[in-house]
Amino acid sequence: MTNKYSFGVNPVQELLDREPDTIDKLFVRENLKSTASYDIVNAASNHRIPVVKVPESKLYDLVGDVNHQGIVAAISEISYQEFEEWLSELNPTPDTAVLCLDEIEDPQNLGAILRTAAAAGISAVIVPKHRQAPVNATVLKTSAGTAGRIPIIRAVNLNQAILSLKENKFWIAGLDQNADSSIWDQSYDVPMAFVIGNEGRGMRKKTGEHCDFLLSLPMENDVESLNASVSAALICYEWKRQLIQRNK
Amino acid sequence: MTNKYSFGVNPVQELLDREPDTIDKLFVRENLKSTASYDIVNAASNHRIPVVKVPESKLYDLVGDVNHQGIVAAISEISYQEFEEWLSELNPTPDTAVLCLDEIEDPQNLGAILRTAAAAGISAVIVPKHRQAPVNATVLKTSAGTAGRIPIIRAVNLNQAILSLKENKFWIAGLDQNADSSIWDQSYDVPMAFVIGNEGRGMRKKTGEHCDFLLSLPMENDVESLNASVSAALICYEWKRQLIQRNK
Repeated sequence: MTNKYSFGVNPVQELLDREPDTIDKLFVRENLKSTASYDIVNAASNHRIPVVKVPESKLYDLVGDVNHQGIVAAISEISYQEFEEWLSELNPTPDTAVLCLDEIEDPQNLGAILRTAAAAGISAVIVPKHRQAPVNATVLKTSAGTAGRIPIIRAVNLNQAILSLKENKFWIAGLDQNADSSIWDQSYDVPMAFVIGNEGRGMRKKTGEHCDFLLSLPMENDVESLNASVSAALICYEWKRQLIQRNK
Repeated sequence: MTNKYSFGVNPVQELLDREPDTIDKLFVRENLKSTASYDIVNAASNHRIPVVKVPESKLYDLVGDVNHQGIVAAISEISYQEFEEWLSELNPTPDTAVLCLDEIEDPQNLGAILRTAAAAGISAVIVPKHRQAPVNATVLKTSAGTAGRIPIIRAVNLNQAILSLKENKFWIAGLDQNADSSIWDQSYDVPMAFVIGNEGRGMRKKTGEHCDFLLSLPMENDVESLNASVSAALICYEWKRQLIQRNK
């Protein structure tokens, strides 16, 4: 899945400072003992990047005959776009919809959501820059290779991004199991942003307050919630059902 | 998740012969070396039951001061119902729907499907007795504790079960990405059985031939398939949407 690498103490350190989420995995030579490499491994762990100790020959296999200094970072094939840049180029129509993920933590959920969003024809998936599962190898695998097919947009502040979407003609709908309206009670014939909350605690309170309306999924048998990727799939495909219906 | 145990060479051997799918895990005393125990561990592996070697004290913790002979099987809390027995007690109405899983292999998918099916108000999930992920601890965990809320029905032969459902007023709809009709093109105002295929190869050919109609999910961006648990969720909730609509 990955075929780009960064190597050497300084380049990898810089990448870790600037764009840690783009690193899928860190390969480190066995018995590497310098202070600099210790700092890098520590920083990688703090960013939840897997660190793998390998023999030196493996590092040469990865990057060829270069001075890698015992440190090689595998970089995700998927690149993010920054929110402001993406928004400035967007001309939303009544057939435009985006997903906003409010701190999805599980990479398997993120991968499943990217796959379904791409299949449903969602225009972009917007994620917060921090406190969000990075697009790593697990995400790519769970997305069945579809993760790069729609733009993944990073916003420094998701609530701020939602306000900007509102200023750009979007209506904001948040999934909330306590809402009175269901996903079937609303028409999505305007540019739509659907907000999916965190797996455990749902949407943050403030994010919920920014929504134009809240939507629930009816549930039987005392089931209290659905998996985040299932909720996302249901709203993406209800939007698509309505889109197909009105364009018939 | 599990609180029932069977222990001792003969009882566990019998359970392995008769109902291997009800065993979540096999605990074996470290250094157990009898031929009988070797046979049991082998049989468990053949049925893909995890085998854990533990100190004798752990076995006493599990089952108390009994003659466990170094072998303890942890039994699933979830009990299956046999297809014929379930069908004989069922009075299908136009508001009845069941899911038939055609050899779902991934326990995480099975857990997610059981959770969504329970939430959507599906009457039962029918699985084949063989070649199907067993309802183990992973399934229970992924189902978020909802796995026991709707009946899980085992059929010796899924195609035979589908024919029996047809004889009992059910219409059979199979999910197939090559179908011309989408899940939104049909009315589900009769007893419905929805067939979900295997993660990799979809529905078996013969199973597809038993279906009254086939249904696809429209997909963009060259996405070729959706995750099995996402497909199941979309059909369950489209059925529920129609049910709510017509009972308004």
